[in-house]
Amino acid sequence: MDFEGRKRVIIENVKPQIDHGRFPIKRVIGEKVVVQADVFADGHDEVTPVLLYRKANEKVWQETPMYALGNDRWEGTFTVREIGVWYYTIEGWVDHFTTWQKELKKKYDAGQEINVDILTGVAYIQKSAETAIKDDAKRLRVFANTIKEEKNVEEALSLAFGTELTSLMKAWPDKNLSTIYEKELRVVVDRKKAIFSAWYEMFPRSCNSEEGRSGTLKDCELLIPEIAKMGFDILYLPPIHPIGTTNRKGKNNSPVSQKEDPGSPWAIGSHKGGHTSIHPSLGTEADFRSLIKKAMKYNIDIAMDLAFQCSPDHPYIKKHKDWFKIRPDGSIQHAENPPKKYEDVVPINFETANWKNLWHELKNVVFCWAECGVRIFRVDNPHTKPFVFWEWLIDEAKKKYPEIIFLSEAFTRPKVMYRLAKIGFTQSYTYFTWRNTKRELMQYISELTQGELKEYFRPNFWPNTPDILPEQLQYGGRPAFIIRFILASTLSSNYGIYGPAFELCVSEAVTGREEYFNSEKYEIKQWDWDMPGNLKDIITRINQIRRENAALQDTWNIRFYKVDNECLLFYGKATEDLSNIILIVINLDPHHVQSGWVSVPVKTLGIDENQSYLVHDLLSDEKYVWQGEKNYVELHPDVTPAHIFRIRKRLRKETDFDYYM
Amino acid sequence: MDFEGRKRVIIENVKPQIDHGRFPIKRVIGEKVVVQADVFADGHDEVTPVLLYRKANEKVWQETPMYALGNDRWEGTFTVREIGVWYYTIEGWVDHFTTWQKELKKKYDAGQEINVDILTGVAYIQKSAETAIKDDAKRLRVFANTIKEEKNVEEALSLAFGTELTSLMKAWPDKNLSTIYEKELRVVVDRKKAIFSAWYEMFPRSCNSEEGRSGTLKDCELLIPEIAKMGFDILYLPPIHPIGTTNRKGKNNSPVSQKEDPGSPWAIGSHKGGHTSIHPSLGTEADFRSLIKKAMKYNIDIAMDLAFQCSPDHPYIKKHKDWFKIRPDGSIQHAENPPKKYEDVVPINFETANWKNLWHELKNVVFCWAECGVRIFRVDNPHTKPFVFWEWLIDEAKKKYPEIIFLSEAFTRPKVMYRLAKIGFTQSYTYFTWRNTKRELMQYISELTQGELKEYFRPNFWPNTPDILPEQLQYGGRPAFIIRFILASTLSSNYGIYGPAFELCVSEAVTGREEYFNSEKYEIKQWDWDMPGNLKDIITRINQIRRENAALQDTWNIRFYKVDNECLLFYGKATEDLSNIILIVINLDPHHVQSGWVSVPVKTLGIDENQSYLVHDLLSDEKYVWQGEKNYVELHPDVTPAHIFRIRKRLRKETDFDYYM
Repeated sequence: MDFEGRKRVIIENVKPQIDHGRFPIKRVIGEKVVVQADVFADGHDEVTPVLLYRKANEKVWQETPMYALGNDRWEGTFTVREIGVWYYTIEGWVDHFTTWQKELKKKYDAGQEINVDILTGVAYIQKSAETAIKDDAKRLRVFANTIKEEKNVEEALSLAFGTELTSLMKAWPDKNLSTIYEKELRVVVDRKKAIFSAWYEMFPRSCNSEEGRSGTLKDCELLIPEIAKMGFDILYLPPIHPIGTTNRKGKNNSPVSQKEDPGSPWAIGSHKGGHTSIHPSLGTEADFRSLIKKAMKYNIDIAMDLAFQCSPDHPYIKKHKDWFKIRPDGSIQHAENPPKKYEDVVPINFETANWKNLWHELKNVVFCWAECGVRIFRVDNPHTKPFVFWEWLIDEAKKKYPEIIFLSEAFTRPKVMYRLAKIGFTQSYTYFTWRNTKRELMQYISELTQGELKEYFRPNFWPNTPDILPEQLQYGGRPAFIIRFILASTLSSNYGIYGPAFELCVSEAVTGREEYFNSEKYEIKQWDWDMPGNLKDIITRINQIRRENAALQDTWNIRFYKVDNECLLFYGKATEDLSNIILIVINLDPHHVQSGWVSVPVKTLGIDENQSYLVHDLLSDEKYVWQGEKNYVELHPDVTPAHIFRIRKRLRKETDFDYYM
Repeated sequence: MDFEGRKRVIIENVKPQIDHGRFPIKRVIGEKVVVQADVFADGHDEVTPVLLYRKANEKVWQETPMYALGNDRWEGTFTVREIGVWYYTIEGWVDHFTTWQKELKKKYDAGQEINVDILTGVAYIQKSAETAIKDDAKRLRVFANTIKEEKNVEEALSLAFGTELTSLMKAWPDKNLSTIYEKELRVVVDRKKAIFSAWYEMFPRSCNSEEGRSGTLKDCELLIPEIAKMGFDILYLPPIHPIGTTNRKGKNNSPVSQKEDPGSPWAIGSHKGGHTSIHPSLGTEADFRSLIKKAMKYNIDIAMDLAFQCSPDHPYIKKHKDWFKIRPDGSIQHAENPPKKYEDVVPINFETANWKNLWHELKNVVFCWAECGVRIFRVDNPHTKPFVFWEWLIDEAKKKYPEIIFLSEAFTRPKVMYRLAKIGFTQSYTYFTWRNTKRELMQYISELTQGELKEYFRPNFWPNTPDILPEQLQYGGRPAFIIRFILASTLSSNYGIYGPAFELCVSEAVTGREEYFNSEKYEIKQWDWDMPGNLKDIITRINQIRRENAALQDTWNIRFYKVDNECLLFYGKATEDLSNIILIVINLDPHHVQSGWVSVPVKTLGIDENQSYLVHDLLSDEKYVWQGEKNYVELHPDVTPAHIFRIRKRLRKETDFDYYM
C-alpha cells in the first residue's frame, strides 16, 4: 500500500477540461477562467477546496478560494494576465476546525455539556500555530491558551467563533492530508486579436490599378491606410511565393495556360525558390518587411498563407524526392480528389520515412517568416496533413512566439475541424459560409458557442473566399452582401472577407457552381476600389461599432431571442456587467420588406417592465422608445436590412426628469 | 521527437468510459458491451477501426469490427462471457487499399487513364502478402501477379474489386502505423445476481416464535424454504456478532436499557468477541455454515452486514486504542451527528496513523466470512469511511472472490452515493424509499437509468428498512404496501424488503418520525408470519413474474409512457428483441379508484396499429383486447392497484385464424 490511505477528499468532474486535460482550454489576456468541481469527503466533515493556478514558468501556485454552489459543487475564478501557457488545478482538505465549530454550536444549542469538546478545538488551534508564521503563530497560541483557561463557556465560545480566530485558522489550515486533483490542466492564453479580429484577404498582385502590370508588395503598402480606415486589423495575403510553370492553370482553372497567365498562388515553388522565397514580381524581402512595418503602425497584422504543398517545379521536388509519393511508373503523384485533378500541385507525403527532416524544414518555413515579423498564419487545408504534425508545429512556434496566431482553413467534416482546434489552431473557418436561414444559423451558432466547443474552438466567419461565392451572394444582390456582412461581423467577433470582390459586390459565378467566374486565383485583376454601390461605408461603420461596443468583441455571449417572422433573426450580446447591451434584428430576406414583433428579454437585461427604454440604432443613428417585451420592427433590404440597437437605459434622477445615458 | 509522427488516425470520445478510464464500467456475465468512438484521419483516406477486448488474465486481444454510424462515429460490440475484469480499447489505421479501390472506381467512371493506378494497388497487395499466413499469402501473390499482367482494364478491375481479394485484404491489413487508443478501459463483470436480485432482510433473533427466547441461526435455517417460496434469492441478516453492554440502548432507542433488552445488533463487540465472532445466543460458526449451505440449496445467498464500527466493549478498543479518537480528557469519542448521540457505538478513526494495520484487519473480517461461504455483503454506512479504503477492500476481495457482491447502504448526498458505486460497490441503496409521486418517480428513475450512471450505479430499491418506515406506508394502509412493493420490484431489477414487518404491513411509527415504533433494532420480536392480510401471495406472484419475464430482469430498459391521470404511472420494459414486453400501469393513490387512458407506444413495440393485440395481466390473469395507442384502465387500490401486462402479439396464420401466442 504505497499510497496515503488517509486522503479523504475527492475531487472530480472538474470543468473546463478537454479530454481529461489532454488538450488545453483557450483564453485571451485579461479573460477569466471559471473552474467548477465536485469536491467532497466521506462522512459529515466540512471540506475546503481552493483553486490553484500558475504561469507555466512559475513554480509556486497562486491560491484562490472556491465557493459552494450546492450539491457538493464548487466554483473558483482566476484571471489570466499574460500571454502563454497557464496551469490550474484544485486542492481540497477536510476542514476539522470548521467542522468542530459547526458541531460545537449544535451541541451548545441543544444544551449539551461541551467542556471537553472545547479542548478538542484548542488542539486544532495549537496545531495550526505550529505551521503559521511568527505573528500569526503568536496570536494562535494566545487564542489556544485563552480558550483553554476560560472558565466561562459563553466567553470561550465567543472567542472560538470570533472572526479573527476563524480567519487565522482559514489562513493556516492543516493540509497534511489534502488531495490535489490528479491533473494540472492547461490554458493557452493568446492576445486579444485571437477572439476579436476583422480580416481582409487581398491578392497583392491585384493591388495595382495600372492595366497589365502585376501589383507589388509596395502597391499593397500604399493601400494600408485605406484598409485601416475600413476598420480591418488583419490583412491576409494568399501565398506570395514563386509560382510553378509546369501544368500551370489558365483562366477559370483551365488545364491549359497562356503565356501571360500568372498561375495560382497556391502552386508554390519554381526555380526562383519555394516557401521561403518571394515571387520576384511582388518584390523583395525588404519590401515585405516594409509592408509589415507600415501595417503595424495602423495596428494591422500581415497574415501569411501557409500552404504546405508544391508546384512540380518546387526546389523540394529535386532535393527531397522522398517527401513525395512516387507512382509505380516513376512519376510524382500530383494532387487529386478523384475524379478532380490538381495537376499544378503536388501534395507532400507525410507518411514518408523521412518525416523528421520534413517536419523540421516546414518548421523552418514558419520561423523564417516569423523572423520577418509575421505573427499570424492562415493555414491552407490543414486537414490534409497529420494532426500530430500541427500539434507539434504550433507548440514549437508558440514556445518562441507566444503571440502567434494560426487560423485553420479547414472546410471538412465537423470532428476533423474541431480536432484541429483542440490541437492548437487559434481560430477556425466554419460552415457559416453556407448557413443562411434562421434555423440554420441558430442551430449552428448554438452548437459552436453553447457547448464544450466554446473552450477551444474560436469561429471565424467568412461570407466569401476566393474559392467560394455562395449562392446567397450570387442571387441576392447588394442587400445580400450587406446581410451576410452584418451576420458575419456581429454573430462572430472574428470574421473576414475576401476583398475587394466582396465590397464591390462581385457576384458572377461559374455556372452551376459556387465559384467566382474569372477568379482572381488564376489572373491578375485591376479593381475599381471606389466603384459606385461599394460597401465601404457600411463596412467602416460596422467595424467602428464593433470597436466601440465591448459586447460585440465576444462570440460566446450570443443569445437568440424570439421574433414572429421566419425571415427575421433577432439576437443579443451583452457584457457580463450589462453595461453594454447590443440587440440585433436582421432581415434575412434580401428581396422583400419584412416586419414583425420582437420579444426583448427585458428581465434578463435588467430592464424595468414598467418603464420605457431607448433603443439606439447604431447603423442609422435613429432612436426608438420601446417598452416591455414585444416591440415592432420593419426592415427594408434596400435601405438597411438590419437594426444594430444599443440599449440606453433611462436613469431616474432626483429631479424626476428622465434622461438618456 | 521520440514519437511516431506518421500515425494519422485519431481515436477520441470513446464510450462507455468513466472519468477517462479511472473507473471500470460494470456488466454481468453474458451482457454486451457496446463501444462507440470517433475515429478519423486527416485527408480523404478511408480508416478502419476495430474493437479490441480481452479478459484481464489474457495477453492477446480479441478483435471485432466496428461499423460506421455516420459523422465519423463508429460502433462495435463484444460480449463478456466470464466473471472478472475485462479490458477493451480501439485500434484504427488508414486503409490504403480500400481508399485505392474507391478512388480507382471514381477515376474509371470518369473515363480517366488508370493503368499506373492499378499498379499502385498491386503494390498494396504485395505488401499484405508479406504479412499473411501461408495460404492467404499465396492467394494474395496470385492476385498481385494476375492483376499486374492483365492487359484488359475491365478484367483487372473486376479482380481488384472482387469479394475474395477484398476480404483477404481486410484480413491482412497494414497496421504498421496504426493508432491504439491511449487507454485500456476496464469492465468489471459480475454474476447475474448483481443486476437481478430480490433481497429479504430479517433479524435472526426474531426467527423464533416462542415468546421470550432469542431466535437462532438454526431457527433461521428452518425458514429458508418459506423465504425461497416467496421468491427471494438473497437473505440479508443484520449483524450477527456479539453486542456490547456499555451504553446499550433500550426499547425505542432509549439511552437506558433494561436487563432483558438485547441491544442493537449494530453495537458490535463484547468480551465474547467482535466482527469475526457470532453472538452466542444466535449459535455457532457451524450453525452459520449450515445455514449458508441450506440457503444455497434454494439458490439463496446469505448476505452479511458489514458495519465497521464498535461497541465500547469491542476487543479492538483495548487492543487497538490508536484506531479510535481519544478526546482531550482521555475518553473515547462515541458516534454522534450533533446534536444526536449514539452512545452505544464508537466510530473507527480512519485518519489514524496506523491505518495500514486497521485496513488489514478489516480485510481479514471480510475474508473470514467469505471463507465461511458468504459472497454478498451489505455494507452499513460506507459513506462514513474513506472512499479509497473501499476501493482497495473491494478490489482485494474481488481478486480472491470475483463473484462477491457488495451493496452500499448509503443514504446521503447524490455525489457521495455515486462515487461509492464508481469505486466498486456492486449495488446501491437509493432515494426510491422517499420517491412517491409520478413526477418524483419519473424524474429520479430517468436520472438513474438514462445517463452515464447506468454504466456503474446499480440501484436497489427498498420500500422499507429497519431504520425507515416512510410516511406513505404509515398512512396508506395495505394498498400502499402493495403499491410500493410493485414499484420497487418492477421499476428496479434489484430490490429488497425488510420483513416480516413489510409483508405483515406493520405501520406504527414513532410519532412525527419515519421510524418504527417498538423497532426490532432494540428488541426481540415474535412475528405471526401468517397473520391475515399478509402480502405473501402477491409477493410470491410478483417474484414469479420477475423470474418468468426477462424484461423485468433489467433496470435500464425502462421507459415511461403517457397516461392522462397524475395518479397513474405507466411504464414498460422489453427485451432487446421484443420477445418479452411488459407494460405496467399502477395506481399511486392508495385511497381512491383511479382511471385513465394510457398511450401504448405501439410503433416502438412493433405492434400493427390496424390489428388488435392482447394484453395479459399477469397479476389477475385477466386478458384484454386492445388496439392502437389509447386504451382505458381503471385500478381499484383495494383490489389490485396495478396491471402487469404481458403483451401477446397475435400471429396471423395461413388459415387466416388468429390465435394467441
